[in-house]
Amino acid sequence: MTRIAIMGAAGRMGKMLIEAVSGDERARLTGAVVRPESSLKGADAGELAGQGRLGVTLSGSLEEVIDDFDVLIDFTTPALTLENLALCAAHGKRMVIGTTGFSEEELTRLEGFSDRVPFVFAANMSTGVNLSLNLLATAARALGDAGFDIEIIEAHHRHKVDAPSGTALMMGRAVAEPLGRDLKADGVYQRVGQIGPRSAREIGFSTVRGGDIVGEHTVLFAAEGERIEITHKASSRLTFGRGAVRAAHWLMDQKAGHYDMQDVLGLKQALPDGSAA
Amino acid sequence: MTRIAIMGAAGRMGKMLIEAVSGDERARLTGAVVRPESSLKGADAGELAGQGRLGVTLSGSLEEVIDDFDVLIDFTTPALTLENLALCAAHGKRMVIGTTGFSEEELTRLEGFSDRVPFVFAANMSTGVNLSLNLLATAARALGDAGFDIEIIEAHHRHKVDAPSGTALMMGRAVAEPLGRDLKADGVYQRVGQIGPRSAREIGFSTVRGGDIVGEHTVLFAAEGERIEITHKASSRLTFGRGAVRAAHWLMDQKAGHYDMQDVLGLKQALPDGSAA
Amino acid sequence: MTRIAIMGAAGRMGKMLIEAVSGDERARLTGAVVRPESSLKGADAGELAGQGRLGVTLSGSLEEVIDDFDVLIDFTTPALTLENLALCAAHGKRMVIGTTGFSEEELTRLEGFSDRVPFVFAANMSTGVNLSLNLLATAARALGDAGFDIEIIEAHHRHKVDAPSGTALMMGRAVAEPLGRDLKADGVYQRVGQIGPRSAREIGFSTVRGGDIVGEHTVLFAAEGERIEITHKASSRLTFGRGAVRAAHWLMDQKAGHYDMQDVLGLKQALPDGSAA
Amino acid sequence: MTRIAIMGAAGRMGKMLIEAVSGDERARLTGAVVRPESSLKGADAGELAGQGRLGVTLSGSLEEVIDDFDVLIDFTTPALTLENLALCAAHGKRMVIGTTGFSEEELTRLEGFSDRVPFVFAANMSTGVNLSLNLLATAARALGDAGFDIEIIEAHHRHKVDAPSGTALMMGRAVAEPLGRDLKADGVYQRVGQIGPRSAREIGFSTVRGGDIVGEHTVLFAAEGERIEITHKASSRLTFGRGAVRAAHWLMDQKAGHYDMQDVLGLKQALPDGSAA
Repeated sequence: MTRIAIMGAAGRMGKMLIEAVSGDERARLTGAVVRPESSLKGADAGELAGQGRLGVTLSGSLEEVIDDFDVLIDFTTPALTLENLALCAAHGKRMVIGTTGFSEEELTRLEGFSDRVPFVFAANMSTGVNLSLNLLATAARALGDAGFDIEIIEAHHRHKVDAPSGTALMMGRAVAEPLGRDLKADGVYQRVGQIGPRSAREIGFSTVRGGDIVGEHTVLFAAEGERIEITHKASSRLTFGRGAVRAAHWLMDQKAGHYDMQDVLGLKQALPDGSAA
Repeated sequence: MTRIAIMGAAGRMGKMLIEAVSGDERARLTGAVVRPESSLKGADAGELAGQGRLGVTLSGSLEEVIDDFDVLIDFTTPALTLENLALCAAHGKRMVIGTTGFSEEELTRLEGFSDRVPFVFAANMSTGVNLSLNLLATAARALGDAGFDIEIIEAHHRHKVDAPSGTALMMGRAVAEPLGRDLKADGVYQRVGQIGPRSAREIGFSTVRGGDIVGEHTVLFAAEGERIEITHKASSRLTFGRGAVRAAHWLMDQKAGHYDMQDVLGLKQALPDGSAA
Repeated sequence: MTRIAIMGAAGRMGKMLIEAVSGDERARLTGAVVRPESSLKGADAGELAGQGRLGVTLSGSLEEVIDDFDVLIDFTTPALTLENLALCAAHGKRMVIGTTGFSEEELTRLEGFSDRVPFVFAANMSTGVNLSLNLLATAARALGDAGFDIEIIEAHHRHKVDAPSGTALMMGRAVAEPLGRDLKADGVYQRVGQIGPRSAREIGFSTVRGGDIVGEHTVLFAAEGERIEITHKASSRLTFGRGAVRAAHWLMDQKAGHYDMQDVLGLKQALPDGSAA
Repeated sequence: MTRIAIMGAAGRMGKMLIEAVSGDERARLTGAVVRPESSLKGADAGELAGQGRLGVTLSGSLEEVIDDFDVLIDFTTPALTLENLALCAAHGKRMVIGTTGFSEEELTRLEGFSDRVPFVFAANMSTGVNLSLNLLATAARALGDAGFDIEIIEAHHRHKVDAPSGTALMMGRAVAEPLGRDLKADGVYQRVGQIGPRSAREIGFSTVRGGDIVGEHTVLFAAEGERIEITHKASSRLTFGRGAVRAAHWLMDQKAGHYDMQDVLGLKQALPDGSAA
């Protein structure tokens, strides 16, 4: 049983994390921290997250619960995350960090903890997306120079304001890199009118927007006579919370170090050249 | 048994038509016409089309075979088609016309035969595409103003030089018209960068190019909570030949008139307002 | 603005209906009825459904709110629905009925109100599913005897205990009927081992189970050279609530009568033979 | 430029191989062998395969052309293949073997050549299928015990007589093995009626039959909140020929040994445990 505390429990991601922990048989929520000034202090974390009473009181400081957990999950801000990392280092705790927006200097400080704390740091904790990146690198290596054209199609809800999605671009880089291609030179983001035949190097992106689609990505490898498609479909943002919980379990057996989701998923060795996807 | 003659038998489409007729249990090839100066005259039409000997000799003129068939299938040129239509009118024959590129004046002359010859005239004879256009009009009427966003995704082989495909645009018009929308104002053909939220009126087009994809079109209607997708996939150009043969059978029971594939497929009455898709 | 009251507001479907009404710009929730003995009486309907305060107090009886609404939406039990229908008839109100499980005798009584109350009665209120049934009937008529094989593939979450889904069977009937086929004789529900070539009449069903898939249905029409696929994907059960609200709006312009979702969607005339799908 | 000879050139697969070689810029057809008694001896291999004249005369014996090629591609019979392997060994030639139906004893003899001839031996030479098997093993390892349900859906033309397809079963084994599952115990090949909830261990197979579908396979990994799908679609049997030509090129740089398509595709090292998929 992995005992987990959640930082920023009252935020949107915090509630998702509470739900993910409470839905996992091998995990137990044993701490939930909100801002010191929050009016929610003292309330039950489960009730806050619509999960029914879990018997875990929302606390105003990490120090109050520091002895109660094995792993802290933190999707907050760089400054707060670094503070928490120092505290976890001092008390022999592990951390799963989904915080984004670190400056170079902050990243250096984060890295500085890697000899004292086992922690997983990843911008996207989804098991499926991280596995997909790995599969895509393998597929690109095997197919990219064998007459297979690469296209990436993504679909999201009508409210999404940018295109292509960040995940589509991550997938594009995952296939471009092993082939020595570059999205700046080889990415094709629109096709209208007399476009001429497709070049072999190009990586095409298509963007679909509509309804409430949470996020769907397909990478197509198309040759004469056959196609491979690798598709990821998210149906709930809860999937990011689950990935964090998975990382927490995995950390229990690790020594100090900075890890990512490729490590958690056991995919690091899977690349022929020994590098990560 | 419908007796069919094929005009322009030695061309690429002509050979497809021979294959389509010879593969249809209810049809028999009884005439095949090539250019008067063709060196192929006298050869067997089936052997020309890789279908084995069919016992039909390639002829240099329609007049030579005018008594041998019920329906002429003609995918040639406007001038030749109009000549053939006059000959068929004089001999009580029917015609299936897949010729494209008629001028306004030629279209008027074509129309002039509608009280004397039963003929089907359609730029795309595929049963599936024509049915799809009809389903799309029905779906647009039912969904378009009920919170469903409309997107069209098409995929073709790497050699296709234009985008979006003509069929994608036909599908776009099929959904735009019943909703009082217009592809010029409402069609969105690219999405790159900070595009902002999707508007309700827009009809998005996505173009995928790769491998040997013959032609795939999906129209997506996406709302909060549900989606409908109508997809057409062509796996062989033979499908256009089959549609022509189907039209030939159907013509056997029709009186003089200008018909299209919606008539052939029995879809004309299917629209609530009595109009064709 | 359509004023709507909801019967059985505290149930799972009741809460969905509150959410659907509160999310619709043209509708206003003006009544919400719970059981007379419910401890929730007096609470705010919006807060109950997690939609924030809507200013509508939960009432213990329909009579209390009978003057406040235009349309009652009722997904409860046959006996209660029939009582409510009598009350609505007496007060000139309309009804949308999603209740299931009526006996023959109860259906006859329900039918008896059709000259006094405008009401919509349908087991599945989803716009998309109802439209799909209509499109499927049209497609089957056009394709079924033209060499197109029909297959139905459905996917649901891992907890679903029956197969194929009720909706898959409805879709099967929608394609079987216009072709004079019958799921008992022509439905094929399993293919294992040496099955031999496919017969032209059979309608194949495939069942996929996994994860949290809310419900996906594809009907495939496959011929030599082309395919059409009609796919419905539900991403939220809220879609059933939205269909009910759509029916409520539509009822505002109708005279007394028993209607179904094909009427609401304007699809009744869409069938060549004038019958409903 | 790899010089290739083809054994059994007059057979269906032989013609495909001629087409695949003639369509490859880096390969040249320099030998084509038919049965000694064949009436086709002396004809042009390209014309036989509908590829136009290639200037390669069909020969009645491998010995006649033994000095003309680098790699022999052989999709014939076990006995003939073993004879050819002996001849290639004696003359320092390489072989690509797609022959099936070897007995245990014949396999042992085949293996015996592995210290003298570089040869690739694989029942399915498709690049895409072989890569898919590798990706599936990786995905199963990463996902199979993390709450992802595995389902395999295959679709083929109406004439296919067995179910599920051999490739679907290969894919099933590729996901079962790394998870310690077994298709005999865990494969579920039908779901009809009251089936109850899905078990976590089961691997479901669905079979779709219709039209002219060459072969489509999807393996679905479905969890709460997300799904990954790995799909292979064959559009032409030529793809198997292309895989053989690819293997021929790859063999040019190999020393004596028995290789498979995982070697050719550079995927052997891609598995965390160092084993092949």
